Amino acid sequence: MTHTLSSLLPAPPGIGALLSRLRSLPLYRAALSDVPDGAAWADVPFLTRGRLTGAFEAGELLHPEAVRVHLTPHPGGSWLPEYATRADVASHGQAAARAFARAGVRPGDHVQVAFGYHRFAGGWIMQDGLEALGAKTLPFGPGESEAQLETIRQLGVRVLVSAPSFAQRLGEAGARIDLLISSGEPLTSIAGRREKVEAALGGVALDCYASSEAGLMALETPAKDGLRVLDDWVYLEVIDPETGAAVPDGERGELVVTHLGKQAMPLLRFRTGDLTRLERRAEGTYLPGGVFGNVGGMLKVKGVKLFPREVAFWLAGFGLDHSQHTLRLWSQSGADRVGIGVRGAPRDDLTALRADFQKRFVVRLDALDISPDHEGQGVLDERG
Amino acid sequence: MTHTLSSLLPAPPGIGALLSRLRSLPLYRAALSDVPDGAAWADVPFLTRGRLTGAFEAGELLHPEAVRVHLTPHPGGSWLPEYATRADVASHGQAAARAFARAGVRPGDHVQVAFGYHRFAGGWIMQDGLEALGAKTLPFGPGESEAQLETIRQLGVRVLVSAPSFAQRLGEAGARIDLLISSGEPLTSIAGRREKVEAALGGVALDCYASSEAGLMALETPAKDGLRVLDDWVYLEVIDPETGAAVPDGERGELVVTHLGKQAMPLLRFRTGDLTRLERRAEGTYLPGGVFGNVGGMLKVKGVKLFPREVAFWLAGFGLDHSQHTLRLWSQSGADRVGIGVRGAPRDDLTALRADFQKRFVVRLDALDISPDHEGQGVLDERG
Repeated sequence: MTHTLSSLLPAPPGIGALLSRLRSLPLYRAALSDVPDGAAWADVPFLTRGRLTGAFEAGELLHPEAVRVHLTPHPGGSWLPEYATRADVASHGQAAARAFARAGVRPGDHVQVAFGYHRFAGGWIMQDGLEALGAKTLPFGPGESEAQLETIRQLGVRVLVSAPSFAQRLGEAGARIDLLISSGEPLTSIAGRREKVEAALGGVALDCYASSEAGLMALETPAKDGLRVLDDWVYLEVIDPETGAAVPDGERGELVVTHLGKQAMPLLRFRTGDLTRLERRAEGTYLPGGVFGNVGGMLKVKGVKLFPREVAFWLAGFGLDHSQHTLRLWSQSGADRVGIGVRGAPRDDLTALRADFQKRFVVRLDALDISPDHEGQGVLDERG
Repeated sequence: MTHTLSSLLPAPPGIGALLSRLRSLPLYRAALSDVPDGAAWADVPFLTRGRLTGAFEAGELLHPEAVRVHLTPHPGGSWLPEYATRADVASHGQAAARAFARAGVRPGDHVQVAFGYHRFAGGWIMQDGLEALGAKTLPFGPGESEAQLETIRQLGVRVLVSAPSFAQRLGEAGARIDLLISSGEPLTSIAGRREKVEAALGGVALDCYASSEAGLMALETPAKDGLRVLDDWVYLEVIDPETGAAVPDGERGELVVTHLGKQAMPLLRFRTGDLTRLERRAEGTYLPGGVFGNVGGMLKVKGVKLFPREVAFWLAGFGLDHSQHTLRLWSQSGADRVGIGVRGAPRDDLTALRADFQKRFVVRLDALDISPDHEGQGVLDERG
């Protein structure tokens, strides 16, 4: 029964060849030993961060042809090496170049990248694609606003790649940029944020989704109708973080990523922990709302999954101080109750906020308290 | 007469084609307008930093196909952009890969690069060649000794690319490295320095010569008999910094560099300001003593050129504190006199030191004073 259902689910192109190739890597040998080449996609086991750590300790991550190594921070202050071969660098670059072109980056543009290139993948995720596109790419690194402003002005930089908060600061200090590729912090997933950044820069700000394990995965286009997935580089799916089953397109869940052709350390159904929705359109796959939090600390409230990080993003979208908020759950007459306290200026649209919460989270908000001196306590689950 | 002489001087292969190609670039149009295609090499004008600044301001540095931009610090706190096309990145990488292979770097080695990748060329000069060779290259960036030690140990890093002082510190903290590619500070040009660094690391330390304008230009081999020039990437020559005439091979002078095939911002007889000697051997060109200072502040003493920076390197080679030294010149009975005062512990080999000075600089040292509290005043030229 499960097999019949799961075999109807979408799957990446050429599963058989993919599995047979990955089976030859030490990283997947054990995990795929019970999975036949003709297996349904849903029967392919997930890759977790924990499994990657174990594979590193067992010497299974190394690829003989790797030429580039980055580190990825992992929970507990530790790190893992990320290996890429020359072919990996090239194919990631080509897929990224196509995405940058769709976003409006043009060959010949001066592009300034304000992410770090030391140890961690940071700016490298952007560099190869921009160079492959033919953009004049300046790996500037983070910080040093004054110097960044100077090169933006003197070189006529048209495209900036940076965190939206940094871009906004540069804009407020006088930078005028035609196009911002925004990464590292939420942009589209916090209501109103894009508009503020665009006002400061005088240009268009587009959101992107990338990670050091997977590279560039999705990037908006000027249509601003979602982040278009790099379908020639990765296969993305969304699962129920509790059961691991695929959720229908359009529903929230945990993003899972598979590399289609990467040679060194390819990800096979890697659970990112990121929360998103996925939509298949004629021209490709999209993440319509970007990535809006992570699945950490998932709660079941009134039978519905509630992700505290997503609630924080929602508060931020209303200009409330999400760093000082309390999400409180309690029981009343045997039923779940939800309340939020958050730091902010008193306001008179509380009814509208509660309606928006219910629309977004499909859960009724039983209490909402906004006050300038609220001390956030995070999640308080006081149910019996 | 000059023409007859100069046409006998060594010149890069394919001058005609080189000049005709460079003539089409805005950077060289004016400078080469008076130079016929069949001109002797010595008639080709030098490129100076000042001319590069002027070209930047006139918009002459940009190349339509450039994909990478670094900044080069220029005197006065300013900077110039350095452009490279994809072909430039590839051909520099291939030439550098051959040099790294001669130095003993092997495909598959883990190589950790402790130079910066932000804004300035730094680690990028090393990255392309190491990747082209097939080494697993970790662009670590500068500093963070503890974290560097951890990756060296955990990844089994065999080759380190860093400044010799940083390598020595890592070695003293426990790092064991088979091969150090040393750059950014003098190594072979300060007597005894290599031995100290090698003792700390337990491996071989090799010297290299590179600049952000020219890339990697010369790298030692395990034979330790000089820095072998990347003859397929650059043409190096040594000139008299005063007259601009070529000096005979083996004589000290200012290093001048020409890119053989670079497309964007190629250097044509660029005066580096660096002081070196050049030797042509059957297998290629060498800089036998590395780069031992720069030509800034050149003095004529007893009819001989004396370069204060070279004197500082010489002092450092004897373990004296060259940051606190005075090079004093005065006249006596119409003749030049030279004296050195330097901070250091009292020692009894003053006669040997004076003999070494005379051998190295072809000038008799009239006074030498080493004391623990000497306050260096730099160069004091008190001649009439």
